Amino acid sequence: MASVPNQISAIQAAREIAAGRLTSEALVRACLGRIAERDPTVLAWAFLNPDLALEQARACDRGPKRGVLHGVPVGVKDVIDTVDMPTAYNSPIYAGHRPRADAACVAAVRRAGAVILGKTETTEFANNHPARTRNPHNLSHTPGGSSSGSAAAVADYMVPFAFGTQTGGSTIRPAAFCGIVGYKPTFNTINRGGMKFVAESLDTIGTHARSVEDAALLACAASGRPMPEFSRFKGKPKVGVYRTPHWDKTDERTRMLLADVVDKLRAAGWTVVDADLPPQAVAIYDANSTIMQFEEAYSLGYEFDVHRAQLSEDLTARIERGRATSRDLYERAIDVVLEVGAMFVDAFRSVDVLLTPSAPGEAPFGLTTTGNALFNRNWTTLGLPCVTIPVGQGPKGLPLGVQFVGPYRGDSTVLLAADAAWKAISR
Amino acid sequence: MASVPNQISAIQAAREIAAGRLTSEALVRACLGRIAERDPTVLAWAFLNPDLALEQARACDRGPKRGVLHGVPVGVKDVIDTVDMPTAYNSPIYAGHRPRADAACVAAVRRAGAVILGKTETTEFANNHPARTRNPHNLSHTPGGSSSGSAAAVADYMVPFAFGTQTGGSTIRPAAFCGIVGYKPTFNTINRGGMKFVAESLDTIGTHARSVEDAALLACAASGRPMPEFSRFKGKPKVGVYRTPHWDKTDERTRMLLADVVDKLRAAGWTVVDADLPPQAVAIYDANSTIMQFEEAYSLGYEFDVHRAQLSEDLTARIERGRATSRDLYERAIDVVLEVGAMFVDAFRSVDVLLTPSAPGEAPFGLTTTGNALFNRNWTTLGLPCVTIPVGQGPKGLPLGVQFVGPYRGDSTVLLAADAAWKAISR
Repeated sequence: MASVPNQISAIQAAREIAAGRLTSEALVRACLGRIAERDPTVLAWAFLNPDLALEQARACDRGPKRGVLHGVPVGVKDVIDTVDMPTAYNSPIYAGHRPRADAACVAAVRRAGAVILGKTETTEFANNHPARTRNPHNLSHTPGGSSSGSAAAVADYMVPFAFGTQTGGSTIRPAAFCGIVGYKPTFNTINRGGMKFVAESLDTIGTHARSVEDAALLACAASGRPMPEFSRFKGKPKVGVYRTPHWDKTDERTRMLLADVVDKLRAAGWTVVDADLPPQAVAIYDANSTIMQFEEAYSLGYEFDVHRAQLSEDLTARIERGRATSRDLYERAIDVVLEVGAMFVDAFRSVDVLLTPSAPGEAPFGLTTTGNALFNRNWTTLGLPCVTIPVGQGPKGLPLGVQFVGPYRGDSTVLLAADAAWKAISR
Repeated sequence: MASVPNQISAIQAAREIAAGRLTSEALVRACLGRIAERDPTVLAWAFLNPDLALEQARACDRGPKRGVLHGVPVGVKDVIDTVDMPTAYNSPIYAGHRPRADAACVAAVRRAGAVILGKTETTEFANNHPARTRNPHNLSHTPGGSSSGSAAAVADYMVPFAFGTQTGGSTIRPAAFCGIVGYKPTFNTINRGGMKFVAESLDTIGTHARSVEDAALLACAASGRPMPEFSRFKGKPKVGVYRTPHWDKTDERTRMLLADVVDKLRAAGWTVVDADLPPQAVAIYDANSTIMQFEEAYSLGYEFDVHRAQLSEDLTARIERGRATSRDLYERAIDVVLEVGAMFVDAFRSVDVLLTPSAPGEAPFGLTTTGNALFNRNWTTLGLPCVTIPVGQGPKGLPLGVQFVGPYRGDSTVLLAADAAWKAISR
């Protein structure tokens, strides 16, 4: 048994608990200890009741094994409903709100034996207005958003994994900024019942963890997708480097990192080619904004109409832009998604995965912005699976990530590729 | 002004109110009067507070015109959240549940000036276990389901229009059984924020009304889709008669009705041809069941795990089937949807709309079943817009409908075609 249980992986924890070498209570106590020590400055948790967490842990220790997550704690982004904990979307409108049911993904992981440790901070309604959370690597920097608390808590060893969500770049970007793994599955992988919608055509529940295997484990337990066979995978997937139409927005370190990763993969015997897409693919970025704003103007219609004074100015302006967007423009944006989607189907005929930046650079200084989703919005809109792995450092010593993107439903491919690449790079 | 305000159309009511010839209060009082008289036997309403409805109406009468539905009452199926009324999904698990926000579609129609009259009965979680509602044409017969209360209330002149939802046949079938218009828009027309999911890949919010125009008005006000220009439409759309792979399940009157409608349309100068699809299209029915059960096992995961004894046996069995369905089978079902969808894209190259039964026959006797969704599940799964119009009678004198189906996003086409066909048939 590891001497510091809150640092071990979820998979190892599940194994230790199943073997009787670790109790869920000891693991949860270790996580709570770390939180008590660190969260007064990191501020990753929106709600945490140690007694409630320990009660779940002891029930696991007493009871029969429920499933693959038996006894393992998980963090839940506070836009996802929990019946025993408040869910407030980081909005004063919902202060103290207690949902009547668990969200589908929460119920699924409880069924698999997980302990719901607490609710992690989110930006306001998973939009841009920042959470109070700080980057555990440097408290003066943003952890990214909107899944700020999930990324920071996992990065800071407070919990082995956590649910996030992504409508623009809300899972991958904070993972990259906090130096952990982020996994945004193919659209329609994890059921969204009981999550607060931003934009129903885009919203995707994803996972944060400190290993690709753990990120996969949580998503698979929540969705019924079979777990990829990481330990048996010996492949060297063919990689296409995709610099995106926004390459000029990346900083120098990010460009150097990508070149370095390519060199190391080639040195390890991987085939890496340039993947260049037709310039029309650039239309996907505006399509994302149009779809998000149009749909959000409806999904937050009540909050805007009745509680406008309690919304941030940023969100108010966004909803106003959504209301000023015609349905015709919205539907043309959806058409663009289909057209650009077809281009990427073609792209994946010649490569297994794409390699691309996770973000323009390291986490920006300050807590007034959560950074730029420019390297994520396109993939969310296309519904393609993405995995970011932490493999470098920016000029201020903050983590950098690179992102692997797979074809539609190619979740196993991209998870295995990211895991194998990380090992090849780290060798 | 009409002497019986609860019988006039929503469009006429909005016009009369805007012209100062009718107050919202008088209209709502007329609806409440009808409800007081009839609902003790029809049982269409799950929640109705006359004072709350009248208060909204008086606010409309006092205030400036808010939008196209100003002062017009609407019924809301009780799987759609309302902040000022309980929302209980016809499940004891949610008795007295008061959501913290209005659903997106409720907020949208309030913004357009609508009065939320009350909540209409639904089958348990919009599944098969019946509501207590009776068919207003014959109280011994089902009104259909799952949007039982919406269809019965509109048919019985208690409210001019109402929201329903459809995952299998839950909007079109009860409309046909109750002798009104039902409109299931193209998938992703009316935002689903704040509705209780059955199956997120299928669930579609639709409308019930006594005219095609009214059904369109409510959906357009809720979605930002432009209102089709009914009064200016002089077209005779090309109709393909689609008997479906389940023609042998229809009763004789339904087959005669369809033949009669074809004759009348031809007599009115319309072009009507046979539309026959490849036999592979039959796979869509199983795909619907697989997708619905798999997704529902997640969306009702909490209710099943924690409150199983309070679920009907029928629903329990369905969720158990969902849990026994592999993700692989589920994903293959989604592939089938894409394949069959492509066949229908082809079908719409040679016709403007399809004409097909709305249900196998008239509303069945008894309240233990809500009838068969065999003529609806396929269209819901394909996401295509459907309109049922009431144009005949079954052997027991209960209403029959025929259904028009349009191509993806061909909502205006199918609404205009159904309206024009109804007029041509009634001439």
